[in-house]
Amino acid sequence: MSAEATAPGKIILFGEHSVVYKGPAILLAVDRRATVIASKRDDKRIYIDSEDLGFSGYFEDGKYTSVTGKIWRGRNMAALDVAARKVMAYLGIESGVNLKVRSMIPIAVGLGSSAAVCVATTAAVGELFDGNLTNEKISELSYEGEKVIHGNPSGADNNIATYGGIMRYERGVGLKRLKLDVSLPFIIGNTRKKRSTRNMVEGVKALRDRNPEVVDPIIYTMASLSQAGLDALLRRETKKLGDLMNLNQGLLSALGVSTIELDELVYAARREGALGAKLTGAGGGGCMIALAESENLNKVEKSIRAARGHSMRVNITDEGVKTRKIKDEYS
Amino acid sequence: MSAEATAPGKIILFGEHSVVYKGPAILLAVDRRATVIASKRDDKRIYIDSEDLGFSGYFEDGKYTSVTGKIWRGRNMAALDVAARKVMAYLGIESGVNLKVRSMIPIAVGLGSSAAVCVATTAAVGELFDGNLTNEKISELSYEGEKVIHGNPSGADNNIATYGGIMRYERGVGLKRLKLDVSLPFIIGNTRKKRSTRNMVEGVKALRDRNPEVVDPIIYTMASLSQAGLDALLRRETKKLGDLMNLNQGLLSALGVSTIELDELVYAARREGALGAKLTGAGGGGCMIALAESENLNKVEKSIRAARGHSMRVNITDEGVKTRKIKDEYS
Repeated sequence: MSAEATAPGKIILFGEHSVVYKGPAILLAVDRRATVIASKRDDKRIYIDSEDLGFSGYFEDGKYTSVTGKIWRGRNMAALDVAARKVMAYLGIESGVNLKVRSMIPIAVGLGSSAAVCVATTAAVGELFDGNLTNEKISELSYEGEKVIHGNPSGADNNIATYGGIMRYERGVGLKRLKLDVSLPFIIGNTRKKRSTRNMVEGVKALRDRNPEVVDPIIYTMASLSQAGLDALLRRETKKLGDLMNLNQGLLSALGVSTIELDELVYAARREGALGAKLTGAGGGGCMIALAESENLNKVEKSIRAARGHSMRVNITDEGVKTRKIKDEYS
Repeated sequence: MSAEATAPGKIILFGEHSVVYKGPAILLAVDRRATVIASKRDDKRIYIDSEDLGFSGYFEDGKYTSVTGKIWRGRNMAALDVAARKVMAYLGIESGVNLKVRSMIPIAVGLGSSAAVCVATTAAVGELFDGNLTNEKISELSYEGEKVIHGNPSGADNNIATYGGIMRYERGVGLKRLKLDVSLPFIIGNTRKKRSTRNMVEGVKALRDRNPEVVDPIIYTMASLSQAGLDALLRRETKKLGDLMNLNQGLLSALGVSTIELDELVYAARREGALGAKLTGAGGGGCMIALAESENLNKVEKSIRAARGHSMRVNITDEGVKTRKIKDEYS
């Protein structure tokens, strides 16, 4: 017997970087999901099969042993080890588990892959041991895993992966979940350049320290733009939303977090009629997102590909973490 | 006997677009010059030889007749006709003139070529007839010519071409001329894409009309950035100046006036250590400028060329319009 859980990836629609200082970030869960299937083991190992990333191995007493493929992103895997053990500790169970990880979310480009995998692990292990975990508990236990990767994350990523939908996050104010009852497609363009969120955040801080008289007004503008963007989203004012995405991209460029690769995809999208296009996440690589009328989606996607971006079409999803029991999957 | 006048081109260092609404624009005269040699004719024609642009022709009673090459940018030539006639009218002279126009300033990319040619025409015709025109009068009469091209120009371009140096221009405040007693090289990267200043200004206005809550704060930020930029320039704080150029480029991108071609040159410059890089002028094509330490100038220039930009190195110049009599040039 085993248990499966899936959780969605996310995009940041507005507020990356400015959220560090002021105003909200607006996150959207998207219908690209990570899946984890958990099954029991007779030993105490946390065995992770991530064959689609080309490796498998196990943790035993916190130490990772590679079985197939190369050791890859040890910290990410450690997050799953921590999450699985936290769940079992919470349920008062001592056991090992197999975790079969499969994900449709590109890794390390700001689309919330690590949070989705962590949430799915937590939920799958909880289900495996009939833990009846609430979403609140899943998010909380996943956060323990996320901390292994990100140090002191905002808690936004594990929340959006748990609950889905739309989330407004503001420092000192907290999280607010919202729902959109209609579909709204976005095109994600992936530069395939990995980036370091920490380096980008530190770069903005250094720029601000040198030029507070200019950078602070930019951040204040971004803060009010993010709120205006959430309002436009909830009202489905797509033209307005596009304007605000374009304006936000310029302000993110001003902060020095865009790159020529990101801008090439942004301009490629706009050239074919995208209402708006901007980087999503920390910048310095990673992904951009474009909003377009349905009749232009194909053109915009093609243009992003012609500009050497990987593209995928996603929709906002209200579906957060989902769990089910399955039979005979993993022997 | 003939008379020669030369006048410098210019770059806008800060304040393009924002100057339409608030705050100063900072213009720098650069050591690329336009030259006009004027000689008398026996008829009333204003004969323009612009062979390095591939044409010549003449105005008679306001009507242009092509002599060699194609009719090209009729309005620009009309500006010279108007400027030459305004000078003669001011001096109470009825005559025709030959105008031999040669320029080292690329045309139609925002480097003040038309103003420089107009100022040089005014000064050369004034000198030809021993008019002893003051700089003030040269600038004023040139403005009449500029109006033919630009409708209702700010007066900044003809001023900087007349006086050289550094100019601060603000609507409702006027022009202020400043001098920098040390050299400061810039690299100009030319996308070779012509653009329409009017279209770009109208695009910004439309964006602002739709999103005043975001665009107004951006413009206010640009206004204070321009003043901070002038202060940094006068103090020769080149690192600060570079930061402000980069910040300004992002804000101009937010206003929708940058292009992928401009950004490619901007990033190419930054990649090789430019302290700052931004578009100059109306955007939508045209030129960008980069500031770099002297040891990086070659690398930056090479990088701009590798990104398919035409590049040239310029220096700020205090030399405004210069006039001299010459013998036997033009028969």
